[in-house]
Amino acid sequence: MSVSLAVVGATGAVGRIVLQLLAERRFPHSKLKLLASRRSAGQQIQFNGSPVTVEELTPDAFQGVDLVIASTPDEVAAEFVPWAVERGAVVIDESGFWRMHPDVPLVVPEVNPEAIDGHHGIIASPNCSTTQMVVALAPLHRAARVRRVIVSTYQATSGTGLVGLDELKLATTAALQQQSHPPSAFAHPIAFNLIPQIGSPKYEGYTSEEMKMVLETRKIMGDDQIQVCPTCVRVPVEIGHSESIVVETERPLAVEQARELFQAAPGITLLDDLAAKQYPMPRSCAGSDDVFIGRIRKDLSHPNGLAFWCVSDNLRKGAATNAVQIAEWIVEHRKP
Amino acid sequence: MSVSLAVVGATGAVGRIVLQLLAERRFPHSKLKLLASRRSAGQQIQFNGSPVTVEELTPDAFQGVDLVIASTPDEVAAEFVPWAVERGAVVIDESGFWRMHPDVPLVVPEVNPEAIDGHHGIIASPNCSTTQMVVALAPLHRAARVRRVIVSTYQATSGTGLVGLDELKLATTAALQQQSHPPSAFAHPIAFNLIPQIGSPKYEGYTSEEMKMVLETRKIMGDDQIQVCPTCVRVPVEIGHSESIVVETERPLAVEQARELFQAAPGITLLDDLAAKQYPMPRSCAGSDDVFIGRIRKDLSHPNGLAFWCVSDNLRKGAATNAVQIAEWIVEHRKP
Repeated sequence: MSVSLAVVGATGAVGRIVLQLLAERRFPHSKLKLLASRRSAGQQIQFNGSPVTVEELTPDAFQGVDLVIASTPDEVAAEFVPWAVERGAVVIDESGFWRMHPDVPLVVPEVNPEAIDGHHGIIASPNCSTTQMVVALAPLHRAARVRRVIVSTYQATSGTGLVGLDELKLATTAALQQQSHPPSAFAHPIAFNLIPQIGSPKYEGYTSEEMKMVLETRKIMGDDQIQVCPTCVRVPVEIGHSESIVVETERPLAVEQARELFQAAPGITLLDDLAAKQYPMPRSCAGSDDVFIGRIRKDLSHPNGLAFWCVSDNLRKGAATNAVQIAEWIVEHRKP
Repeated sequence: MSVSLAVVGATGAVGRIVLQLLAERRFPHSKLKLLASRRSAGQQIQFNGSPVTVEELTPDAFQGVDLVIASTPDEVAAEFVPWAVERGAVVIDESGFWRMHPDVPLVVPEVNPEAIDGHHGIIASPNCSTTQMVVALAPLHRAARVRRVIVSTYQATSGTGLVGLDELKLATTAALQQQSHPPSAFAHPIAFNLIPQIGSPKYEGYTSEEMKMVLETRKIMGDDQIQVCPTCVRVPVEIGHSESIVVETERPLAVEQARELFQAAPGITLLDDLAAKQYPMPRSCAGSDDVFIGRIRKDLSHPNGLAFWCVSDNLRKGAATNAVQIAEWIVEHRKP
């Protein structure tokens, strides 16, 4: 089975990795179209050693396209996704715009691949912080039912795209020379600092990013009873989101049991040996497609509690990898 | 009332700030002695505009000393504190060595100043992460009884002293030039990275730093029923520890109530306006003596839960300021 594929947002931080993954994983496609805003149209991007010219994102660009992998801001996705669907394409959208729409499956292939089947032309890929968390929670939920999650994030600057990465470098260089660099990608200086706000104020003192972790988790895991209390924080790291997670389950889970569940779960790599100073860290996990878990221990404050530390490349599993996995699933399960 | 004072560890990251505070706050002393290891003895340090020569830390150095403020590694404190006490001095010790000793009060003046009275020559100042947390918890505990605390820390490199600060700068400079800088103050690269281990493995997968937050919190707050689940993480920040705290209280607390309690509590500054992008951040809180609190909100996952974000200068309230406050209390309450 080979498809005519379009990558939307091909020049962005995630789009570039989508292209890398398609090449690395030899994604079966008969045609590849790269689409981006008018500003980026005309650029040449290397794919598998050959240059491909970026075309402008217009309604007619989707003529003859079977499958779309898109990574754009919400407002762009709101506009272009219907263009593609009306022309018969299936869109895998990484923006936040369509995720909570009742007709749109929100999918992490390790957790709810079966949801893909119910699509009506759009399949959404979750927020990066949510994706790695649900990959970690899924095996625990299946074994012991997750009731409550308290999560504090340590999110990399690449979460806001290439501008975030650039600002971290420029601001840090300036700070080392005792100079200031006016923030623009972030609301506050990011060099040697933490910003405890990601997204805009949304609900009862929580930000939009935090509410994504509450609502998307329930939708992906198919359980509206899961309670989540998130705190999302931007940290001066380039790539790799980290999460300190404390989970309460209906039935207690021993640490050894949890370790076995993680070990057997798809998409998870255990790095858990405190005595040997082994645990996931953003710099060592960046560039990998897996979700890395370590520091697994009993929650000292609750009989059914478990604490752990979870790191994943926010541009890969948090975005590009998850979308490409969904695309692979669609191609494999395509009716002839 | 004026005392003969000795500052031990005067050349360290915290010792330097102790001296600044003594000068700024016009601490009433008749004599000031600066003590440090043999390696640092002979150095001259400015105090209030005049040079003071650092003397070697020996048993006889405490002859005629009334009060000691000490910031040294645990093993140094284990040895020298008895020298001082035997010679009639009262020691305020910032190391971890004496904190959990049953005869040693562990004091945060905003929380349990009355404990100072019971001392037998030694008063311990808590771990930096614990101090700022109990300042924040104390007013909630008085009003509604704290039952459970889940805390994830974001701890600055100055927590390991000047070597940690230096390593952050050198490693970051190297990383910006695509070069590597072998870690020595930390077990792993700290530039643009996170290290989810502070201290050594201690109990059931928790580190020594984490267990300090469990045990010291109970001792300071005088309540062995308080359950704490901590995760301690080193972040590439110079000064200022941050904490994401979720607390469950026996009686529910509304956000407005919590805000009023924080506002009325000593040592706390509220910075809590998400819509105006106002919340504590390490770079803006460094250099202040207060504990800063923001992002106050209901815990969405528990009816009696409250979430907030707490930042404080780890070298000041987390160490030097707390010790100087204890010293001031002793001088004020000294029997003539």
